[in-house]
Amino acid sequence: MTTEVGQRLAGTEAEARARTWSVAKLKSLGFKNVRIETYRMPVWVRGTETAEIVSPFPQKLKLTALGNSAATPPEGLTAPIVYFPSFADLQAAPDGSLKGKIAFVSNAMTATQDGSTYGQFGAARFTGPNVAASKGAAAIVIRSIGSDHGRGPHAGLTTFAAGVAPIPAAALSTADADNLSRMVARGKPVTLKIVLTPQQTGTHESGNVIAEVPGTDAKAGIVLIGGHLDSWDLGTGAIDDAAGVAITAAAAKRLLDGPRPKRTIRVVWWGSEEVGGFGGDAYAAAHKGDRHVLAAESDFGADKVWRFTTNLPDQAKAVGDRVGAALAPLGIVKGRDKARGGADVEPILATGVAGIDLNQSGERYFDYHHTPEDTLDRIDPAQLAQNVAAWTAMLAVVANAPEDIGPVSGK
Amino acid sequence: MTTEVGQRLAGTEAEARARTWSVAKLKSLGFKNVRIETYRMPVWVRGTETAEIVSPFPQKLKLTALGNSAATPPEGLTAPIVYFPSFADLQAAPDGSLKGKIAFVSNAMTATQDGSTYGQFGAARFTGPNVAASKGAAAIVIRSIGSDHGRGPHAGLTTFAAGVAPIPAAALSTADADNLSRMVARGKPVTLKIVLTPQQTGTHESGNVIAEVPGTDAKAGIVLIGGHLDSWDLGTGAIDDAAGVAITAAAAKRLLDGPRPKRTIRVVWWGSEEVGGFGGDAYAAAHKGDRHVLAAESDFGADKVWRFTTNLPDQAKAVGDRVGAALAPLGIVKGRDKARGGADVEPILATGVAGIDLNQSGERYFDYHHTPEDTLDRIDPAQLAQNVAAWTAMLAVVANAPEDIGPVSGK
Repeated sequence: MTTEVGQRLAGTEAEARARTWSVAKLKSLGFKNVRIETYRMPVWVRGTETAEIVSPFPQKLKLTALGNSAATPPEGLTAPIVYFPSFADLQAAPDGSLKGKIAFVSNAMTATQDGSTYGQFGAARFTGPNVAASKGAAAIVIRSIGSDHGRGPHAGLTTFAAGVAPIPAAALSTADADNLSRMVARGKPVTLKIVLTPQQTGTHESGNVIAEVPGTDAKAGIVLIGGHLDSWDLGTGAIDDAAGVAITAAAAKRLLDGPRPKRTIRVVWWGSEEVGGFGGDAYAAAHKGDRHVLAAESDFGADKVWRFTTNLPDQAKAVGDRVGAALAPLGIVKGRDKARGGADVEPILATGVAGIDLNQSGERYFDYHHTPEDTLDRIDPAQLAQNVAAWTAMLAVVANAPEDIGPVSGK
Repeated sequence: MTTEVGQRLAGTEAEARARTWSVAKLKSLGFKNVRIETYRMPVWVRGTETAEIVSPFPQKLKLTALGNSAATPPEGLTAPIVYFPSFADLQAAPDGSLKGKIAFVSNAMTATQDGSTYGQFGAARFTGPNVAASKGAAAIVIRSIGSDHGRGPHAGLTTFAAGVAPIPAAALSTADADNLSRMVARGKPVTLKIVLTPQQTGTHESGNVIAEVPGTDAKAGIVLIGGHLDSWDLGTGAIDDAAGVAITAAAAKRLLDGPRPKRTIRVVWWGSEEVGGFGGDAYAAAHKGDRHVLAAESDFGADKVWRFTTNLPDQAKAVGDRVGAALAPLGIVKGRDKARGGADVEPILATGVAGIDLNQSGERYFDYHHTPEDTLDRIDPAQLAQNVAAWTAMLAVVANAPEDIGPVSGK
């Protein structure tokens, strides 16, 4: 997929090509009921993006517009920056104090095995532009939400609240943000020029690709697994999320090629996850009537699975125990939290369907996440093999469990 | 320098700003006889550079023009590629067989401690374009000469022989080259479109920055050390070669602040090394009459020094032994080869001046060399400290040696 399609931004012709590619691939692998289910969603596309320090230390910086960013005038926007070491500092800025200024939030994300720092530091991207816009800023640049020290900026979605007019919003590469922070530390006013020409292009078609390993017992329900087909547009979407579609399909393929499982395994390659989870929502709406008994997604790269969590009803507790026994030889421990899925299966889990999360290591993930560096070269074959083995083991237990698995009580 | 100046391509106003910055910095550090010596040299500048696979797998690729590359038409050049796994394969192509084609040489450099693979794999860049042009190619793209797996292409000089008309010549990032190789392996013809608009802009001013630690004995000769001030234009020139100017100046500064050395230490920050060694040549021509007794340069990043080599006359063998004794506690071994310097001191060594090379580790150097990733973030403070200690120890021995050091016999 990374070689023959490459980047596949949601709602674009590249994502459509990825769906066509996927159908051919899944059919050639022998999956059944391979099909595309389309829906429509709003599409934002990147334009020109350049930045340069005008004074006191003229040099070019690398940045990328955040999804939903407004455009600058075509000739660019030149303004002094106001420096905020953290998102909390931006939040504390007095209303109106950013008028005519470019806010710069430099919070530096660190890597963790469980990826939990993404939520904490990511707030500067998720809602920082909205906060800056609310305070009258002309634009905002943030230090990329990433754990690398490189020049590839980290793209990603930002969201403006209803009634808040979007402003130009971009992520500097971590190296460029650190350089800018050093300039600020010199004590002289820093003037930045940015040119960003992204556009909201209206509503376009996106879609989910679906394939199945038919089970022997139609009443036993469906085990739903998959990853997302769309990617951000700077890299080739290898770790995010060609890896997830490959891992889950590879595990399903092992069951496809073995004795027929009791339950139908449905593999879904969701569209438009990155830009708002439209694929997951569309799937849940279209498949309300299906009897899903368990859902699990892979959307955190291809490094080793180190932990699993479950959200199983009491009568299926033994299923979780057997999954744990199957995963232990792969070095995978049981976590205490409840499985909660990701953006693609959340809408299904919210209806009371049981879930299992196979947690992958996040130690490298945010070095490459949403950057030009998200390419096939970042996949470690040894860790990928462990990952597929974990998914295969989990799937074999769940798809063949004699117990009635769902729904989760209390939902 | 990386923060307050950034990239400083030879012969441009950025390199001139770097000279001004350097004079102020060296004076503020207390160096004596701080001055700029200018000369003129030809200047090639980068333009637009984009690439995309037209068929069979449309996607954009990242590349950068090689120094001295010709331009494509402004609207670009679209042609089928001819794949060569190695430079030798390109050399073996029949004359005329590349007419109307884009040659693609994919040889993959590996990292070594001594950096010796650069010469071997680098031939594809140094002379590959000349070979392709001689065989009638419309253009050439090579896999970047680097040991990384990233998207940042490696810039660098290429040279066309007299009588060979330059063609557009560029380096794909290693990840993009590997992606292109995978496309080629699918067996279908691959058509590439490239847009490169670099220009030869004629002759412009460049210069060397010179500073001194005056010695007590003017007759004892000059110890010449330094690195190069110019950089390629994609990164901020941290490892190549702000590191070298910083390391050698830091070592000289320790002697400046201590008891006055016997010999004058002359620190030179050479201009325009990257684009043909014009600074080293200009310095050697201007200082023919000076009595240099030893020359050493730092131009291989800021990682630890692991080995040293010397080229000393017989009567100064004991100086080399004392240098070795001073370096051993830092984990530095003596190499068997003769010191040969780099592009900046080669013209001086060629006149019979003795030399010492402090060899830095090349294990990471070619991950970042000439790429956008050559930024301050790549400097490891612990290894930098060892490096400065090694230079200080070597310099203290050499600058104060009672022996008459040079010239090297036989020259």
